[in-house]
Amino acid sequence: MKKHFLIALLSILSLNLVNAQQLKSPNGETTLSFLLKADGIPTYQLSYRSKEVIRTSKLGLELKNDKKSLLNDFVITDTKNSSFDENWTPVWGEVKTIRNHYNEMAITLNQKETNRQMIIRFRLYDEGLGFRYEFPSQKNLTYFVVKEEKTQFAMAGDHTAYWIAGDYDTQEYDYTTSKLSEIRVLNAKAITANLSQKSFSSTGVQTSLMMKTANGLYINLHEAALINYPCMHLNLDDKNMVFESWLTPDVNGDKGYIQAPFNTPWRTIMVSDDAREILASKMIYNLNEPNKIKDTSWIKPVKYVGVWWEMITGKSSWAYTDDYPSVQLGITDYSKAKPNGKHGANTDNVKKYIDFAAANGFDGVLVEGWNVGWEDWYGNSKDYVFDFVTPYPDFKLQEIRDYAKSKGVKMIMHHETSSSVRNYERHIDTAYKFMKANGYDAVKSGYVGNILPRGENHYSQWIINHYQYAVEKAAEYKIMVNAHEAIRPTGIARTYPNLIGNESARGTEYQAFGGSKPNHVTILPFTRLQGGPMDYTPGIFEMDISKLNPSNTSHVNATLANQLALYLTMYSPLQMAADLPENYNRFADAFQFIKDVAVDWDDSKYIEAEPGEFITVARKAKGTGKWFLGSVNGDNSRTSNISLDFLEAGKKYTATIYADAKEAHYKTNPQAYTIRKVVVTSKSKLAQFCAAGGGYAISFLENK
Amino acid sequence: MKKHFLIALLSILSLNLVNAQQLKSPNGETTLSFLLKADGIPTYQLSYRSKEVIRTSKLGLELKNDKKSLLNDFVITDTKNSSFDENWTPVWGEVKTIRNHYNEMAITLNQKETNRQMIIRFRLYDEGLGFRYEFPSQKNLTYFVVKEEKTQFAMAGDHTAYWIAGDYDTQEYDYTTSKLSEIRVLNAKAITANLSQKSFSSTGVQTSLMMKTANGLYINLHEAALINYPCMHLNLDDKNMVFESWLTPDVNGDKGYIQAPFNTPWRTIMVSDDAREILASKMIYNLNEPNKIKDTSWIKPVKYVGVWWEMITGKSSWAYTDDYPSVQLGITDYSKAKPNGKHGANTDNVKKYIDFAAANGFDGVLVEGWNVGWEDWYGNSKDYVFDFVTPYPDFKLQEIRDYAKSKGVKMIMHHETSSSVRNYERHIDTAYKFMKANGYDAVKSGYVGNILPRGENHYSQWIINHYQYAVEKAAEYKIMVNAHEAIRPTGIARTYPNLIGNESARGTEYQAFGGSKPNHVTILPFTRLQGGPMDYTPGIFEMDISKLNPSNTSHVNATLANQLALYLTMYSPLQMAADLPENYNRFADAFQFIKDVAVDWDDSKYIEAEPGEFITVARKAKGTGKWFLGSVNGDNSRTSNISLDFLEAGKKYTATIYADAKEAHYKTNPQAYTIRKVVVTSKSKLAQFCAAGGGYAISFLENK
Repeated sequence: MKKHFLIALLSILSLNLVNAQQLKSPNGETTLSFLLKADGIPTYQLSYRSKEVIRTSKLGLELKNDKKSLLNDFVITDTKNSSFDENWTPVWGEVKTIRNHYNEMAITLNQKETNRQMIIRFRLYDEGLGFRYEFPSQKNLTYFVVKEEKTQFAMAGDHTAYWIAGDYDTQEYDYTTSKLSEIRVLNAKAITANLSQKSFSSTGVQTSLMMKTANGLYINLHEAALINYPCMHLNLDDKNMVFESWLTPDVNGDKGYIQAPFNTPWRTIMVSDDAREILASKMIYNLNEPNKIKDTSWIKPVKYVGVWWEMITGKSSWAYTDDYPSVQLGITDYSKAKPNGKHGANTDNVKKYIDFAAANGFDGVLVEGWNVGWEDWYGNSKDYVFDFVTPYPDFKLQEIRDYAKSKGVKMIMHHETSSSVRNYERHIDTAYKFMKANGYDAVKSGYVGNILPRGENHYSQWIINHYQYAVEKAAEYKIMVNAHEAIRPTGIARTYPNLIGNESARGTEYQAFGGSKPNHVTILPFTRLQGGPMDYTPGIFEMDISKLNPSNTSHVNATLANQLALYLTMYSPLQMAADLPENYNRFADAFQFIKDVAVDWDDSKYIEAEPGEFITVARKAKGTGKWFLGSVNGDNSRTSNISLDFLEAGKKYTATIYADAKEAHYKTNPQAYTIRKVVVTSKSKLAQFCAAGGGYAISFLENK
Repeated sequence: MKKHFLIALLSILSLNLVNAQQLKSPNGETTLSFLLKADGIPTYQLSYRSKEVIRTSKLGLELKNDKKSLLNDFVITDTKNSSFDENWTPVWGEVKTIRNHYNEMAITLNQKETNRQMIIRFRLYDEGLGFRYEFPSQKNLTYFVVKEEKTQFAMAGDHTAYWIAGDYDTQEYDYTTSKLSEIRVLNAKAITANLSQKSFSSTGVQTSLMMKTANGLYINLHEAALINYPCMHLNLDDKNMVFESWLTPDVNGDKGYIQAPFNTPWRTIMVSDDAREILASKMIYNLNEPNKIKDTSWIKPVKYVGVWWEMITGKSSWAYTDDYPSVQLGITDYSKAKPNGKHGANTDNVKKYIDFAAANGFDGVLVEGWNVGWEDWYGNSKDYVFDFVTPYPDFKLQEIRDYAKSKGVKMIMHHETSSSVRNYERHIDTAYKFMKANGYDAVKSGYVGNILPRGENHYSQWIINHYQYAVEKAAEYKIMVNAHEAIRPTGIARTYPNLIGNESARGTEYQAFGGSKPNHVTILPFTRLQGGPMDYTPGIFEMDISKLNPSNTSHVNATLANQLALYLTMYSPLQMAADLPENYNRFADAFQFIKDVAVDWDDSKYIEAEPGEFITVARKAKGTGKWFLGSVNGDNSRTSNISLDFLEAGKKYTATIYADAKEAHYKTNPQAYTIRKVVVTSKSKLAQFCAAGGGYAISFLENK
């Protein structure tokens, strides 16, 4: 018997070997293997230049209240291989043209007992893998509920990870750099207070997750095209170093209501031995559907200022009055309320920002706190919290609109929803129409606090559907969206390029809430920015917040030169100059860089990159051919040694270098900077000092 | 010490007696007492003609996560007494003018520890009491969450009750008649299957709850003006016969998110020793706010037929095709689908109904199943289930619209939401605009199945807000609403008279789903109809459902004469003739009554009434002066002995009496009826046989 069993086992093993199907990336250096294990369990494995990236990992989904989960009992009924190579032109971006080049393998599985079909589609790029589950239209699988997706990502070692804790409601955490095995003990410390948060596991982390292996690989796990499905977190089995998907549940703990035909989002694994390739990859965008907006002429990158930082620092307020214990829209009579004297969105102040924007070439002015309801907007689970159309008495909408128009400046709308999602949807058409009637082409939306409907999470399927609804509806109105506290992007801006920005990470505002880690901005491009641009709101020149608000002792953990570099390193078609005009006026020479820098690009060259340490990138401005360069540095000072070989050969440029002074330090001396001009060519080398939490920025002007 | 304690106790007791505050109804026969008990607990007591109606009962609310609930520690800081007497004219109704006459006592309580204010406002009518909690705007009570409302209704005995089981999602139950003490054992049997249901307690019952006492009182407990608050159920402490409010929770178990200033709905206790006065009472309407719709010219009572009963019986289908395992709006190509051959809402069939309506003087034609999505509309928790604007290929919208217009018939829209509430709100503006563009003035909406957002209940605050939103928005579009499966009405049609109907009870459809109790219609006017009209869809002439659909063996437990009487006894400004045209053509002489009967009234006289047994009412048609009379009977045959003294003295009338034949019986011989004409005056008496489950209907034509 035993012998027979062994023989049987060997046959299975050899059968498995026979069954294993391989796919190679276009350059042949990345290899995917797919294998049905015993009992028909689908597995995959990924390697890069003969190094194991993903050890054999299971695939499948656990269903709720169903006769059988989609985990095993499968046979392969079809395998289709194909190749794809195409260039496409983004509406805005880091580069003019994006190449989408992959080899594909689609494996059709049939579950024997249920006679259900599931396709696993793999797309293998030179820089990584995307795969998804597909459920074709079929009689035996129409509607089903996902109890948990059981996609594994088995790591080949105890890698270094740059992680934030898994959370159903926020990504606004500082990153922790640790070994995978240390996540469990460091988790509690990694979770800092947030206005809405729900963690679920001491080994849960969020994507995009960046890792580095002992043998020199950079690995990134994320997802692409997250539509009508819950956000995927990763939970680590830290005995075996196996990550498994952990979807965001709805209020009942369910993790996805599916109707076939349906495709899940793509699960992505980027890999390279060069960290710069992770930053340069467009794989996430490539895995998304092409642009669905026919006329994109109204989608334009935006550099803007706004009445915002003064509220964030506590210098002024969103609310108009302190008179009422609570307010009710349509009932509270603001005309009779006593102004609190520190309302930021008053007409005079807004005009000051408009003047500043006009004088310095900014496209737009954002104003928060312009509309009634801010007196009790947060923390009350208030349903009818904003109407998105009624200004405070001191915000003269028409006067401001006309003034901005006369100055050639676009007003940017603000829709804080307070996460009262039904209320926003009830008003969204009226609100968008109001925007268009008053010349607003872009909206910053916000989802602060706990979601209504109560019990839902920021990242559950139901609410992800809402964010998508808001973006698609905005497209109908030709409105650009910059959604804060919404789901972190997964490349959907390819399909809906009116989604010009998101927050969905710890932004600059935290520098006024106690500060962020100095190396935060050397990690974000590897993680949060993989899915799309961030409205990071850089450009803070006054690091001592008490200068703005004596009762706020927060310190901005960055040098002034670092803040300039962010306009390059934190790629976004939407860039704010977040500080107050008076602070820019104090440092007019440094401010010149923010005035000059472009926000849309024909080309980008990642020159140096190491997560947590430094990022240096040069970009060629759209249309003008001007080059700009930014370099941000982590916790320790260093010298950045780079070549300027991205410049056009044979030409001379005047490089204006905005850099940390020798004595600069993010904490003790953040405003110590130097500005120097040098003539350079593509053969020039640069050795540039970078302070701790510092960096440098360069504008290149061709000498003609 | 003991002696001192006793003296102290006596002082408190006497103080309490001194503190007791009394309010008498306008006619002096109903008395309310309010008393703060020891520890500042508010209580009330109600009596009628010296009989105890409500024994001393506690008042207050338990709060969630709050420093102190609103249950005790109160002192009275103010008492305001006033009287009110006014006549108002409803847009539609049982009578031309309604008198709102009450004495009021508003008691302001202050909670000592928290310094919070709560007002309890009592309005005492001759036929009962309404009271509510009011939370004025105040610093120490702004936002709070109700854990449970703790309003007691202490019964003075083990009364007979006509009840349906408490349920968060449905009221579509048959009534059980039992002693209060028997509710617990009968509860499980009382709960029959429903597409969405959630019971919560074996002694939980719904309002409006009708009771009869051993000493001859009729008592009704309900609520009025349920807006922005959960529906109140009642849970019985059956040792002490004390009902306590049991609010419908949200998905988290919370029972009301409140922002002060706020008033709860009114809790109502109707009482009389004459059951007819309960039916005639307009107290629930009177406790609602006056009409908020300025121009009401577009609100018109409606008598209608529809493509509906044929689907309910299974003779035809809502769905167009059986081709697809599931459908996706905007993706499924219906033009390529094979019709299933039994789709009711096809153009020819609709035209047949339009012809029938035009030929017989009906105002409107309802068509269900006209729009795409019915193939998988129920039970799949499907979000985007209907779009409310796209017809099936065989429903030629424009052709039907034009045809109906040429025939002088109004089409009635149908919006089944499948309880996908967000989806309905997303489409509601477009759907209402579509209605107006195509000549629809009224909509029947439906909320079948479990609510989305998932976990919410049909009667929770969040969803009650939705029903109200739909009604108010419809008013903006001048659309009349008839909402099925929505919250049972609480008199809101006074404020929004475009709410011309609701279902919210076990309607005629259940006669095709296995049948209802024969005496069901002798209870509904005492219960469900207290809050507003019901779209009961009477007028079934063919009781053997297998004649329509051989595979449906259900039997309509009513005689044909009973079905005619319902047009009087089930007051509604919206009345359907629910059966198929061919069945009406078979009984053209009886159908004449449905053609003749009015749907709006200048006066109504309840002549006989006993819950569960019989109801006889005469009504004077609006404008025409014609009288109609209806009488429904319960389980046992009887003779109805009435006087026709409601007729105008000195005039002669030809009464056409549609009655049960002697051999008639709801089960064995439901179609045995007689029609006779007699000349009558206001001095005439009538002794009319009523079969079990039977009744009679009379039209009076003045002899001139």
